Amino acid sequence: MKAVCLLSGGMDSSTLAYVAKSEGYDICALHLNYGQRTQSKELACAKKIASLLDAKEFIEVDVGYFSQFGASSLTDRELPVEKFDPARAHVPNTYVPFRNANLLSIATSFAEAMGADAIFIGVQSLDYSGYPDCRPQFIEAFQKVIDLGTKDTTKITLKTPFIKMTKTDILRVGMKLGVPYEHTWSCYRNEGKACGTCGSCHFRQEAFAALGMKDPIEYEG
Amino acid sequence: MKAVCLLSGGMDSSTLAYVAKSEGYDICALHLNYGQRTQSKELACAKKIASLLDAKEFIEVDVGYFSQFGASSLTDRELPVEKFDPARAHVPNTYVPFRNANLLSIATSFAEAMGADAIFIGVQSLDYSGYPDCRPQFIEAFQKVIDLGTKDTTKITLKTPFIKMTKTDILRVGMKLGVPYEHTWSCYRNEGKACGTCGSCHFRQEAFAALGMKDPIEYEG
Repeated sequence: MKAVCLLSGGMDSSTLAYVAKSEGYDICALHLNYGQRTQSKELACAKKIASLLDAKEFIEVDVGYFSQFGASSLTDRELPVEKFDPARAHVPNTYVPFRNANLLSIATSFAEAMGADAIFIGVQSLDYSGYPDCRPQFIEAFQKVIDLGTKDTTKITLKTPFIKMTKTDILRVGMKLGVPYEHTWSCYRNEGKACGTCGSCHFRQEAFAALGMKDPIEYEG
Repeated sequence: MKAVCLLSGGMDSSTLAYVAKSEGYDICALHLNYGQRTQSKELACAKKIASLLDAKEFIEVDVGYFSQFGASSLTDRELPVEKFDPARAHVPNTYVPFRNANLLSIATSFAEAMGADAIFIGVQSLDYSGYPDCRPQFIEAFQKVIDLGTKDTTKITLKTPFIKMTKTDILRVGMKLGVPYEHTWSCYRNEGKACGTCGSCHFRQEAFAALGMKDPIEYEG
């Protein structure tokens, strides 16, 4: 069995790849580059995780076009990219309307080309309830699009094991599976030591604290 | 009313944009660059058509990633891109599994960001019955994905006026609407004079011949 895993190199998607592996799938890792600040660090983490899982494929896809639809860059196309603002850290500036449909379409193209049986995506309906394309009903509808839009001999199942989980739940799953969190990256700001103050660092540290664990990566200060 | 129109600069999509305009929509043109041979000619045609229709927006999106999933480039990634082969002209080498879902996802992101009411796409179930993502059922399923994956206040309708038409039918519609076919491009091979021998030229000439019309573009030889 083969599965396409959307693998950013963050905590959630790395745990997701370990879940897929634990279910017996060979991993075909799909990593997306948005041109984000920490792109090379995230890529390095994703490659390391894929390598530890003995992934059969690792493919990088450039989705720089996403930024063309971001609310800010669409309306203010002449403006330089704004500086990172910790207060907005939970809404990445790479946010794009209908983003998950774009991700799943790319993943399905890859999965059909590879003959994969499943696609794993780490959507969470609880943490991101404001995003319509994280809802279970959206995932169900996309499954139907996959069934109808691929060859009749193709059978690809969308897997969303985290859809009803919190970040702490996900970390708990990952600890059981032995996910090496030292090789995952969450910080939006730095590629060396994590800043510890951006929103993404905040949620990561909160999850480790909730389980009484120490985060293995280094933080500034 | 605003509509996102997938506008390649070919006969079909140019006619499509004229249909959208005739239905009262302002046009937001979405043009995709695949890195194809005739990219700059197609882009120039798409821009001309958009300009003649007084389009409100014209956006180019780089989807070079499509080639990463093409059957040939996926399996033979080390090979140089093969030379154009007229015998395969009806299956573009940019073909990618699940391609229309990728196109529609990009179009929906654009449409939601723009506040558009509709998306026009020139899929034809008759001419391309082998492609599962051209089937009416696929389009219906994708409509549901749009409804569920966009904001509750967003209402975007997928429009596929050519889904049951042949290329000759489409040309007939376009002649009535006064589509300036001298500003459309079909040839896969050349950007100057059309070759007249590739598959795309063949189907174009066949449609003009069926209506007893003269194609206004110049051909070699």
